[in-house]
Amino acid sequence: MRYTRVSVGGRAVWGRVGEEDIELLSDSPIEGDPTVIGEVPIATAHWLPVVVPPVFYAVGYNYPRHIAHARAETPTRPEVGYRANNALTGHRTPIVKPVGVEGRFEAEPELVAVIGRTLRRATYKEAQEAIFGWTIGNDISARTWQHQDRTFWRSKNSDTFKPMGPWIETDVDALAQTTTLRVNGEVRASFPTGDMVFDPFDHIVEITRHITLQPGDVLWMGAESTCQLEPGDTVDIEISGIGVLSNPVQLEGNPS
Amino acid sequence: MRYTRVSVGGRAVWGRVGEEDIELLSDSPIEGDPTVIGEVPIATAHWLPVVVPPVFYAVGYNYPRHIAHARAETPTRPEVGYRANNALTGHRTPIVKPVGVEGRFEAEPELVAVIGRTLRRATYKEAQEAIFGWTIGNDISARTWQHQDRTFWRSKNSDTFKPMGPWIETDVDALAQTTTLRVNGEVRASFPTGDMVFDPFDHIVEITRHITLQPGDVLWMGAESTCQLEPGDTVDIEISGIGVLSNPVQLEGNPS
Repeated sequence: MRYTRVSVGGRAVWGRVGEEDIELLSDSPIEGDPTVIGEVPIATAHWLPVVVPPVFYAVGYNYPRHIAHARAETPTRPEVGYRANNALTGHRTPIVKPVGVEGRFEAEPELVAVIGRTLRRATYKEAQEAIFGWTIGNDISARTWQHQDRTFWRSKNSDTFKPMGPWIETDVDALAQTTTLRVNGEVRASFPTGDMVFDPFDHIVEITRHITLQPGDVLWMGAESTCQLEPGDTVDIEISGIGVLSNPVQLEGNPS
Repeated sequence: MRYTRVSVGGRAVWGRVGEEDIELLSDSPIEGDPTVIGEVPIATAHWLPVVVPPVFYAVGYNYPRHIAHARAETPTRPEVGYRANNALTGHRTPIVKPVGVEGRFEAEPELVAVIGRTLRRATYKEAQEAIFGWTIGNDISARTWQHQDRTFWRSKNSDTFKPMGPWIETDVDALAQTTTLRVNGEVRASFPTGDMVFDPFDHIVEITRHITLQPGDVLWMGAESTCQLEPGDTVDIEISGIGVLSNPVQLEGNPS
């Protein structure tokens, strides 16, 4: 199944994605058993971030080639950081490059695990069973700010810096897929989605030693490659078996 | 007014705090105009974190004496980091010290601003007007983990590491108050709440240059002092004009 959220009359509504339409649901499918209350055509849907997580977890260095490129040390245990919900935006909505951002303004294509149940002190098997589904994240970074600031607050969490979508796919072997990053249709990166130092379940086991995961929490799994974005570009991230997350890039104050 | 949330029959319910009772409310008072649907005695209330924020902001170095003590550099502009909602716990609920935490396990008494409206590119005056009210936070840190880890994930965000309460006070000049930290009734720190490098409104102006603040977001303002906690202690943080946030400390797996 593919679940998402769309804006209908200004209201956020869960939906189940079909071939041409999105069936609108009475409630979140993550915990409940919602009923169908309507439908909208996919062609005109206003896509929202697939979920607003109670906590937004993000893994840093997790792909060997990324670590080598950054001359970083390979993690010896899973660790996790945080991103902020204000930065989330949906499929097909613009990534806004703030006025004043100089230097590298980059996309990172990431697999995202969506947690389906409350979880503490999970085994690896329990971690596998706790996944509701998988989606795609684009971890936008303004590198000059990243280096100037004490935290990642504006470099990674300015409004629209975290596209997530287009939907949550519940039936896929996510780690057996290929992640492909395209800018204006041209392939800029392609790598095995599962080529990670520690996989999502390793991370969940470690996180839940100290932390209770909650339904709807998201865990962004890091990226192997980054690429530069310019206003006017369209950036697509495809993970085979899941879908394509597509977003145009705009300069702040210049929506055309 | 004093607003909080309590657990009633396992459900989180907003309340308005009176002398002896908490009037239960139909909805959040932050955006709506809720009606009274019942009441519970304060004496037996099960206090919850006063709000579950869309985003949980936390200021680091912000008090001159803390900065001098840590030999840190005084910030030249407001910056902000993040904490995680799983770590929130309410007034009178235990702070659980995890098995395996060695070394310093410390409390930090913090003023917390609760945002009342959607806000972007705020002026200082708009920032002042956007505050719904003020509460108290205890920023618990396991220092050895803080130094060992790449992020603050478990050192500052393990379950129960972020007590917040007892209520949101809407009618107080928060920056004119005194913050007092007591362990087992003994004063361990006391400082002017408003003696900050950058005040909450300075931070909101800077944050909203890049980020949309949302109703219910919280901004923890940092602390001047820290103090060590041991299992068996009770830690109270008082901010005059707001109230007292009190939490017992327990060792994990040992609730007595």
